Amino acid sequence: MNSLGVHAGKPGEPGDRVATMALNTHRHLELYYAVPCSGAVLHPINIRLAQNHIIYTINHSEDKIIFFDDLFLPLVEAIYDKIKDTVEKFVYMSDKPGLPDTKIDNLYEYEVLLEQGSEEFEWPHLSEDNYATLCYTTGTTGLPKGAMFTHRALYLQTIHLIAHASFVNDPSYVLLGENIVFMMITPLYHIHAWCAPFIYGFLTAKLVLPGTFTVEGFCELVQTEGVTDTAVVPTILALLTEYKDLDNYDLSSLTYVRVGGGALPLGLKTKVEKRIPGFSATSGYGMTETAPTTVRSFVKKYMSEWSKEKLDEVRVKSGLPIPGIEVEVVDENGKPVPHDNKTLGQIVIRGPWVIEKYYKNPEKTAEVWYDGWFHTGDVAKVDEEDFIIIADRMSDVIRSGSEMVPTILLENLANMADFIIEATVVGVPDDVWGEKPLAIIKLLPDSNKTEDDFIEFLKAEGVDKGKITNWMLPKLVAIVDEVPKTSVGKYNKREIRKNLKKYLAIAKDMKQNEAK
Amino acid sequence: MNSLGVHAGKPGEPGDRVATMALNTHRHLELYYAVPCSGAVLHPINIRLAQNHIIYTINHSEDKIIFFDDLFLPLVEAIYDKIKDTVEKFVYMSDKPGLPDTKIDNLYEYEVLLEQGSEEFEWPHLSEDNYATLCYTTGTTGLPKGAMFTHRALYLQTIHLIAHASFVNDPSYVLLGENIVFMMITPLYHIHAWCAPFIYGFLTAKLVLPGTFTVEGFCELVQTEGVTDTAVVPTILALLTEYKDLDNYDLSSLTYVRVGGGALPLGLKTKVEKRIPGFSATSGYGMTETAPTTVRSFVKKYMSEWSKEKLDEVRVKSGLPIPGIEVEVVDENGKPVPHDNKTLGQIVIRGPWVIEKYYKNPEKTAEVWYDGWFHTGDVAKVDEEDFIIIADRMSDVIRSGSEMVPTILLENLANMADFIIEATVVGVPDDVWGEKPLAIIKLLPDSNKTEDDFIEFLKAEGVDKGKITNWMLPKLVAIVDEVPKTSVGKYNKREIRKNLKKYLAIAKDMKQNEAK
Repeated sequence: MNSLGVHAGKPGEPGDRVATMALNTHRHLELYYAVPCSGAVLHPINIRLAQNHIIYTINHSEDKIIFFDDLFLPLVEAIYDKIKDTVEKFVYMSDKPGLPDTKIDNLYEYEVLLEQGSEEFEWPHLSEDNYATLCYTTGTTGLPKGAMFTHRALYLQTIHLIAHASFVNDPSYVLLGENIVFMMITPLYHIHAWCAPFIYGFLTAKLVLPGTFTVEGFCELVQTEGVTDTAVVPTILALLTEYKDLDNYDLSSLTYVRVGGGALPLGLKTKVEKRIPGFSATSGYGMTETAPTTVRSFVKKYMSEWSKEKLDEVRVKSGLPIPGIEVEVVDENGKPVPHDNKTLGQIVIRGPWVIEKYYKNPEKTAEVWYDGWFHTGDVAKVDEEDFIIIADRMSDVIRSGSEMVPTILLENLANMADFIIEATVVGVPDDVWGEKPLAIIKLLPDSNKTEDDFIEFLKAEGVDKGKITNWMLPKLVAIVDEVPKTSVGKYNKREIRKNLKKYLAIAKDMKQNEAK
Repeated sequence: MNSLGVHAGKPGEPGDRVATMALNTHRHLELYYAVPCSGAVLHPINIRLAQNHIIYTINHSEDKIIFFDDLFLPLVEAIYDKIKDTVEKFVYMSDKPGLPDTKIDNLYEYEVLLEQGSEEFEWPHLSEDNYATLCYTTGTTGLPKGAMFTHRALYLQTIHLIAHASFVNDPSYVLLGENIVFMMITPLYHIHAWCAPFIYGFLTAKLVLPGTFTVEGFCELVQTEGVTDTAVVPTILALLTEYKDLDNYDLSSLTYVRVGGGALPLGLKTKVEKRIPGFSATSGYGMTETAPTTVRSFVKKYMSEWSKEKLDEVRVKSGLPIPGIEVEVVDENGKPVPHDNKTLGQIVIRGPWVIEKYYKNPEKTAEVWYDGWFHTGDVAKVDEEDFIIIADRMSDVIRSGSEMVPTILLENLANMADFIIEATVVGVPDDVWGEKPLAIIKLLPDSNKTEDDFIEFLKAEGVDKGKITNWMLPKLVAIVDEVPKTSVGKYNKREIRKNLKKYLAIAKDMKQNEAK
């Protein structure tokens, strides 16, 4: 860092911002330690953002240097004219020696810089209040917002996540210590890859860096490297269950997957564990602003006699707060909702790894930070065991009459059907109820099931078993080839609402559900 | 606390000091949380100190209130006149209702105060820099010194000790989570009972509080409560190995013991594990000023193929620094000694749970805190695996000619002999060498071994195996009925030096070792 003229920050004042545009490679991991430890602030650019948002985050962050993979040379060239007044230096990272022929000025070669670096480099003594990273939200509802984290915040999150695993009483949850072989699939440009560089660095565990995710690559690396643990979004699990050649690989080393970035449907958990025996998936919850992990699901000691079915239902709940951070579900007056597995409220959070403010954005900060809590905009209920269960985004929840239809609950139910691969639910305008639920589903290839079969399934598994009420059933069902997804693999409801006409045109009106 | 008029402190400024004179009871544990969480400072009085030292610590600490067990009523009455100008209120803790007939003014009944307490009590919001506890050193070499700890220091020690257990790769080391049943034998008046109230509170583990330690009581509680873990000084392990009725109890739940407060001799570890199969002992190191734990021994992944004998040798080394704290062994110029398992140096420590200063004692602070490190006064070497191995106290090390004879090394060797129960080594004046080693040993009852057998054993196991050199062998050996011990169960070398004539009178001069 030093030879590039990077300036360290002071406690509470960020040092120079240094950005990355890179996949999960060893170089990216090196920068995860090198940049913050030199006193600068690491800005891992989410290369899946829209190009204008990428340009926005670079200029908003005022990145002084960008380190980029050779793969992203065309992208950097494409946005070069719009960032070159901000960015002073570019560093090219490649397995092949030499620099490319390009219009980019001030281009350095990563491996050459390393060779020229002094072995005597003395790391500066930093305060725990020095800033370490700057991560931007995906900006699905406006411009990306910057979340900046101190060394203290990252360290405390790491040590609490590790300590948390120590008191978990679930053999399918923990496999700790130096024996872990962790494959880092969540991109390093998605909120610290969920803390993986720090947790597994602390544990001196072996890290497997796949570059980018492919199902084939995943299976090959598990087989050759003996991968034991990983952490993924639900979509990745869905891809694994669909993969035809899965049985050709030896995946027996796999024991544990942490699922985040979206609710883990019980059906999906069951499917993936049937295809990869010994592999256990559990749920969690967090967001960019919380670095990200705040809640994880696990089995408590008093549950040890419960049946596997009942325990699996526990493991797919969003979970309990990680010790060290406070998470509450509150009503409109900021009062905690009853733990009745029914009443919905908003999740609010405070603690050492929650951002205090958005970077250079006091207006957005004021929208989320008030009454002493960070307001997540996520809707949840709390059950009798004190487990938090995410119901929806505030903006996605369907308001039907005076009631709220929690779409994630419907989606989880839908995913339990063995003929369903993907399912999402959005609210569409309705003259009578204000809004009504539209389900958009993708069937298993060669399935001959219909919209009616889908609704019958929801009735049998949802209504009859008391998980949802009759009036929550989708009034419209559209069968599609592909459900739109965001860059992080979540269902893109914004995209669906934008193209609502298209979906309404193919949706079947389920008249039989009209009666409330 | 509130009803007794206790004042909370501000960050960096201690609140009122509230003392305890109590054994390991549920009331003492309650005070461990109640006092610091109300903003006051808990001073657990070491009731094994000399009476004048107890009086000194109470007046030096300016304790406003003392909570004491009924058992200690005579002690409180005995010192009453010398502390009554300092202490405003006394609280009597007993299973039996009512107050005793006593000259103590302002005496309250613990259980009555609890009954009268408001259930609506609102805990104050404290800063992490609020002081929580004040613990005094045992003062074996002068007046006791006060070590005061913030909530931050205690919390960070707790969470790091828990996280540390997560990456340990030794099946005989870890048994974590809610399944632990921990018996708290180390007294709560000895430096936070080695952090047990905080660690096992965090883990929501079951705590067994024996009051005070007896071998019979220990065995009974293990059997009835299913105790899995404990932490003790080596002396307690020695008592267990000697106990004739041990085999009458079902001790099969016992799996793990952390040993501290003195080096764990390999011989003692072997003996106790032979008598209690499945029970595994490992070593550690710390002191009052470090809250206390800083170093623990454990098996690393790369050692996993080593033989049990070799691993046991690792487990009795003092260990590796706990992550989160820095521990070095340095020469007289403050330079780290080579990791050659030979060169001796002083242990220096710095990190979030090391005291910044002695309470109201700048002179003593200056003696230990300089060059950016806390100087422990403990002599150690570092082996090729980077494990720290305590050799001696600076003040105990024997200076023979220009060489240092590390007495703890000799004691550990001696403890490997199956005819030895206790063994210590001190330096006595010598015309030629300046000092020479005197061994004071206690033999197994009915043993017919002699002083010569002892030296022969040291030669065979020590000199011949390269662990010590010939000139380190004791020049004098005294066989005694009991080796003097301090209140914390360590060999009391000060006491021995005070009564040196007595020991020299019975010691045998081992002429054959004179040749260097």
